[in-house]
Amino acid sequence: MATAGAPAPQSLADRFSRVRERTVELASPLTAEDCCIQSMPDVSPTKWHLAHSTWFFETFVLEGREPFDPAFAYLFNSYYETVGRMHPRPERGLLSRPSLERVLDYRRAVDEGVGERLDAATPEDLELLQLVRLGLEHEQQHQELLLMDCKHVFSCNPLAPAYRSDLPEAAAGLEAPRDWIEREGGLVEIGHEGAGFAFDNEQPRHRVHLEPHRLATRLTTCGEWLAFMDDGGYERPELWTADGWAVVQERGWQAPEYWRRDEDEWSLFTLGGPRRLRSDEPVAHVSWYEADAFARWAGARLPTEAEWELAAAELPVRGNLLETGALHPRPAGAEEGLRQAFGDLWEWTASPYTPYPGFQPLPGAVGEYNGKFMANQFVLRGGCCATPREHLRASYRNFYYPHQRWMFSGVRLAS
Amino acid sequence: MATAGAPAPQSLADRFSRVRERTVELASPLTAEDCCIQSMPDVSPTKWHLAHSTWFFETFVLEGREPFDPAFAYLFNSYYETVGRMHPRPERGLLSRPSLERVLDYRRAVDEGVGERLDAATPEDLELLQLVRLGLEHEQQHQELLLMDCKHVFSCNPLAPAYRSDLPEAAAGLEAPRDWIEREGGLVEIGHEGAGFAFDNEQPRHRVHLEPHRLATRLTTCGEWLAFMDDGGYERPELWTADGWAVVQERGWQAPEYWRRDEDEWSLFTLGGPRRLRSDEPVAHVSWYEADAFARWAGARLPTEAEWELAAAELPVRGNLLETGALHPRPAGAEEGLRQAFGDLWEWTASPYTPYPGFQPLPGAVGEYNGKFMANQFVLRGGCCATPREHLRASYRNFYYPHQRWMFSGVRLAS
Amino acid sequence: MATAGAPAPQSLADRFSRVRERTVELASPLTAEDCCIQSMPDVSPTKWHLAHSTWFFETFVLEGREPFDPAFAYLFNSYYETVGRMHPRPERGLLSRPSLERVLDYRRAVDEGVGERLDAATPEDLELLQLVRLGLEHEQQHQELLLMDCKHVFSCNPLAPAYRSDLPEAAAGLEAPRDWIEREGGLVEIGHEGAGFAFDNEQPRHRVHLEPHRLATRLTTCGEWLAFMDDGGYERPELWTADGWAVVQERGWQAPEYWRRDEDEWSLFTLGGPRRLRSDEPVAHVSWYEADAFARWAGARLPTEAEWELAAAELPVRGNLLETGALHPRPAGAEEGLRQAFGDLWEWTASPYTPYPGFQPLPGAVGEYNGKFMANQFVLRGGCCATPREHLRASYRNFYYPHQRWMFSGVRLAS
Amino acid sequence: MATAGAPAPQSLADRFSRVRERTVELASPLTAEDCCIQSMPDVSPTKWHLAHSTWFFETFVLEGREPFDPAFAYLFNSYYETVGRMHPRPERGLLSRPSLERVLDYRRAVDEGVGERLDAATPEDLELLQLVRLGLEHEQQHQELLLMDCKHVFSCNPLAPAYRSDLPEAAAGLEAPRDWIEREGGLVEIGHEGAGFAFDNEQPRHRVHLEPHRLATRLTTCGEWLAFMDDGGYERPELWTADGWAVVQERGWQAPEYWRRDEDEWSLFTLGGPRRLRSDEPVAHVSWYEADAFARWAGARLPTEAEWELAAAELPVRGNLLETGALHPRPAGAEEGLRQAFGDLWEWTASPYTPYPGFQPLPGAVGEYNGKFMANQFVLRGGCCATPREHLRASYRNFYYPHQRWMFSGVRLAS
Repeated sequence: MATAGAPAPQSLADRFSRVRERTVELASPLTAEDCCIQSMPDVSPTKWHLAHSTWFFETFVLEGREPFDPAFAYLFNSYYETVGRMHPRPERGLLSRPSLERVLDYRRAVDEGVGERLDAATPEDLELLQLVRLGLEHEQQHQELLLMDCKHVFSCNPLAPAYRSDLPEAAAGLEAPRDWIEREGGLVEIGHEGAGFAFDNEQPRHRVHLEPHRLATRLTTCGEWLAFMDDGGYERPELWTADGWAVVQERGWQAPEYWRRDEDEWSLFTLGGPRRLRSDEPVAHVSWYEADAFARWAGARLPTEAEWELAAAELPVRGNLLETGALHPRPAGAEEGLRQAFGDLWEWTASPYTPYPGFQPLPGAVGEYNGKFMANQFVLRGGCCATPREHLRASYRNFYYPHQRWMFSGVRLAS
Repeated sequence: MATAGAPAPQSLADRFSRVRERTVELASPLTAEDCCIQSMPDVSPTKWHLAHSTWFFETFVLEGREPFDPAFAYLFNSYYETVGRMHPRPERGLLSRPSLERVLDYRRAVDEGVGERLDAATPEDLELLQLVRLGLEHEQQHQELLLMDCKHVFSCNPLAPAYRSDLPEAAAGLEAPRDWIEREGGLVEIGHEGAGFAFDNEQPRHRVHLEPHRLATRLTTCGEWLAFMDDGGYERPELWTADGWAVVQERGWQAPEYWRRDEDEWSLFTLGGPRRLRSDEPVAHVSWYEADAFARWAGARLPTEAEWELAAAELPVRGNLLETGALHPRPAGAEEGLRQAFGDLWEWTASPYTPYPGFQPLPGAVGEYNGKFMANQFVLRGGCCATPREHLRASYRNFYYPHQRWMFSGVRLAS
Repeated sequence: MATAGAPAPQSLADRFSRVRERTVELASPLTAEDCCIQSMPDVSPTKWHLAHSTWFFETFVLEGREPFDPAFAYLFNSYYETVGRMHPRPERGLLSRPSLERVLDYRRAVDEGVGERLDAATPEDLELLQLVRLGLEHEQQHQELLLMDCKHVFSCNPLAPAYRSDLPEAAAGLEAPRDWIEREGGLVEIGHEGAGFAFDNEQPRHRVHLEPHRLATRLTTCGEWLAFMDDGGYERPELWTADGWAVVQERGWQAPEYWRRDEDEWSLFTLGGPRRLRSDEPVAHVSWYEADAFARWAGARLPTEAEWELAAAELPVRGNLLETGALHPRPAGAEEGLRQAFGDLWEWTASPYTPYPGFQPLPGAVGEYNGKFMANQFVLRGGCCATPREHLRASYRNFYYPHQRWMFSGVRLAS
Repeated sequence: MATAGAPAPQSLADRFSRVRERTVELASPLTAEDCCIQSMPDVSPTKWHLAHSTWFFETFVLEGREPFDPAFAYLFNSYYETVGRMHPRPERGLLSRPSLERVLDYRRAVDEGVGERLDAATPEDLELLQLVRLGLEHEQQHQELLLMDCKHVFSCNPLAPAYRSDLPEAAAGLEAPRDWIEREGGLVEIGHEGAGFAFDNEQPRHRVHLEPHRLATRLTTCGEWLAFMDDGGYERPELWTADGWAVVQERGWQAPEYWRRDEDEWSLFTLGGPRRLRSDEPVAHVSWYEADAFARWAGARLPTEAEWELAAAELPVRGNLLETGALHPRPAGAEEGLRQAFGDLWEWTASPYTPYPGFQPLPGAVGEYNGKFMANQFVLRGGCCATPREHLRASYRNFYYPHQRWMFSGVRLAS
């Protein structure tokens, strides 16, 4: 969290109610049974998200208070080794108990506790205020995860259920040819500084030297991806890194995740259920390996995170985010300049996820939040259609393993 | 099923209602969430048991009728390759949909359909009557499985929930020393013949030559098993088959399934939750490998299935079966002769599960019921505390892999 | 080993020289490099066979003598847990040292030691004589294994080397249609009794009841197997046990081991290198799963080991064994009665490998020889083209897992 | 390869003879059996190294000429998908044929062929000269690999053979406390430019911004590593990345590779056989995960590759390299400034292996040389005691996966 300052108690209390309610609301289209399922180790059940984000507040904000249920410390710890032992991740889907009802009770009890603390707080209670704020950012990450995980869970069910059956379809997009923005190089600065929240991994702000480069004005579309596939994209080893090629062979990948072919027609599985593939919308659910191979095929490359951040820093945080309610990426609009920077899809970068020069993890157990994942992952930037707007900023660094593709990930080219 | 005869339509209709209701009743202590969970590939969710046993009637008895839901043919087929493709067994726990409610609707609809067929039936409708009867025997197998699977599911939950918290504890048993019954050898007959239902694998009745032998009068107790453990039973390779020893090493077995040690005290996980271990009760949840090693340690062996059947055929089918409501094995009583032959625990035999001379599987798809499992498994006899009484008989052959132990299995010695 | 009697010291000493020399002779077409390779965990390097069979004599016959190399007790123990720890089986191919030269020195030193003991022995030295005899039978088993393992090793080399390039091709066989011998049932005896060596697992001789049955007069041919394949044998689950079908899917089996298809022509890999497939010769290198599925397809079954033994006991031990030098099965001849009972291929039976009633393993460490493998394997009978003639008899029980097929295994039908 | 220029034909021919001979010389302490063994998929047999480095010349330099053996194109291709299919890496240890003798014949034949080409070449034959030079650099990489792989192979043999028994022990080192060199930051340049060979991945030379930093004057010692271990280094998750901790748990790591504990004493397995651990010598055979955890424990970090290169670029390429014949890292000397930059051990950096801005792989099949590995690996710098001196330079980028540790890797701290 940003070392400088903390939000005022009252406004934080308001935000606390708002954010916590939204999580419950996001789970509301789901049955108790839906909330139980873990379709692969990367995915967590909705019930677990509801409980774990609550555990975070109970553990770090209400520390010292009698726990709601002593077993929950073990059940709902995700990966904080400092705090104690934890239930194995791949077994999160074996827990029919506690019931969804009891987890909602847990939420209410902890919300009450945190509410009392905030009511009693003064602006001097810096640590409390900062921890609550961190807890809310954490909660918003789990809102996004809840939706991505739910999509995966439903995709594994032959009945192909929809998370919501009332999701609007986007208007037809301008399927304009790919266009480029020229960007200068030079000694620049990236990373977070100043007021406002940011995670430890976005800091410190520091200098980076960039060469002149170009960024695509919009995300890569499904139509372009089909051209890649038609050109043998998934069968030509020379387009792939060695590790990527091995994964393609091993898993038999022939298209992005959630693409299904019925005879000659492609469809996508979405949070609104199966939909016909549209060539104008951004291609989603691709791994870094695929993004990288596509870029090579296209005679381009992925942007570095510094290139991305500099360009995005000039723009307002606006786009197809959680608040639009689409829960699916939309075709690029016709406006000038860099489009779809925020929202729609997390954009793979060429940058491995490593510490910034001078990086310091947060002190204490919350120091496990980001730093310990700085190996073997790649940075993604820009948020997606499941990201709450207030959770995002240009310096935000998301990260996933290069083989993962169940999240809302997409591709912007650079060269 | 027995080729000779079939039950009268009306009595079968009565039994149909009774058996089908009992399955629902067995699921009634569970929440919809509980009914979703699959804790390992061998285990199926309760909801799946409820649906699959219904699918059996819909597929084989209501064949030709408009299906309740066309997707169910795929979702709830267990292993009938002849009937069509099936949902992969390890993914049964990913199905939050159909909901428990919908599965119960499915049961009602199919029950109605079968009821109508039975109402219209005459004693000449042999195939219908035989298929319904087979479906009920099948349903009763799944009643037993439902309970065993539920036990495993709850055992994986750190909260250690009880399936029922009102299960009675057995009275103290006579922990008498092991005693033997001497049995003659000779040319004898085993297998089913005549009226009454039996599975294809119990037939044909045929001759077997036996040497004179002895059978233990009761099941092996936990107290005796503790003596085996104290004598290094799990650390001495010379007591084990090579395959058994490999499994012990690989899985780190040091006691039967569901045994837990807290400091110096052993407890068991039961359908009534955790209980203190009692040395007088039969040891349960052991694999064939363990049963075989124990027998070697005890200077004895496991009985063959022929030895077991001949002795049991002299006794009424009576014992600690599903109807007692104990759902846990009980100490042997003080009566004379062979005790605990029926009920309490399925008894491992020394006999690999192979076809009887002249064995013929049932014609058609139901021929996949038993015959195709005749490799790599061992026969168990006698039923357990989760077996419905009317489902059992002396010639009944159950079978499991030698490493499995989540079922109610136990050990009777022979020599 | 047979409890009754032991061979005379001098004749045993002669046999000892002869058998031990033959092993070295069998290894002589191989380079030191060839002797190093382990192509899968089931296979052992030739050098290991040479050393382990020597270790057997050193450990059990020369016990107490200063070991040739103290490290060898660990390196060359196969599975005798009683004797001490052992080098892991899958790592036998990592041992470039000791060199082949040193292993041959080891053989010479131990041969000398055993020779001295035999020279000094009198007919009263029963234990010594029996152990030497057991060691020789053990050595002959490894002669067979050496050849089967070598075949597998060379089959994994894209250069397809021949073990010997001078192996004769068999004369054209009479590809007669399958014919049957009718055999009576009744109460019969099988198992070894009386003078002459037999392993513990062939004893005691005991009574078995058989139903009347028929045995095919010859082994199943490649031509018949092609008909099975052409009829979808490997694509029809209803022909297979459930476990067999799972293995077929998992390993992608479409033909027996060592069959290769080049366009429209099938060839076999043999110890003489690749050869064109001949429809008249016996099909070899099939698993039990395949043998069982073939039998079902043919409307027949595999014989039980008792049926086989009774029929074979009437015949002399004669056939295409190691001594013919063919090292490959040959077409059946035109003679009357049961053909190919001994030699050509080990014949899968329907019998799981279990102890005979009253079975007692040998006392001491050699008791690990046979008994501990009595789970999950099937019995094969009759020897093969790599079996030394004097090693064989009608009561001999060989055993392998049902998925294994690198050994010289074949199929005789029964019904 | 450097685009600018190529060596003169004659000097290249001389170097060709010299380098090719050295490879054979490095294999000369080994028997044909030793040269066969592959102890894990990462390791290749010596014979394979001898053949593959020859295949490289035959394929890329003698292209078009009749191949020595047509099968070798398949057998000895490592990973050049563009050139054709290849023998699976994990099966390199199954090839007793071709024999070592034949591989040496192969080398002689290809050497002759390349020699003829060079004799006929003029300085204008740029492509030929560049390809030969690339082949020699490639050969030198395999010289290093041959030694590292041989060490692993022998380490898997319970006899613990020595590659050479005459390796000298280093003189006692000055076990001085760790000391630091202060280095300025700023906009600097790294990467190769100008005359002299360099791989494509070292290019283009480009600007990087560095913050001021410190580099340890010497490599981390075994004594320091023992302190880390004594302080619970391998038991404290807070010191590790999440992936690193998972590997530690899974593999049970408690010390670097090749460390063995006998009671209270540690020894190392070396190319000279087992040796007592010396606290003054550099710790070797650690993974990136361990290097990173050690650095965190020490309150420091690993240097970036830019920091390392800038410092090393000021020094001559001199140190404990292959030519010293030690084949083992040596304690640091007492000289001023940065010690052990070249030689002793490859130094892990904090830098993931990624393309430099503007990176272009070589055209054609040799473009698979470096570029396709640019994911999931980390850069190591500086060479080791098995690296030929002329093969090395300050801009050289080596790379391995973060879990690997069978290579000569070590740790220099930065902060």
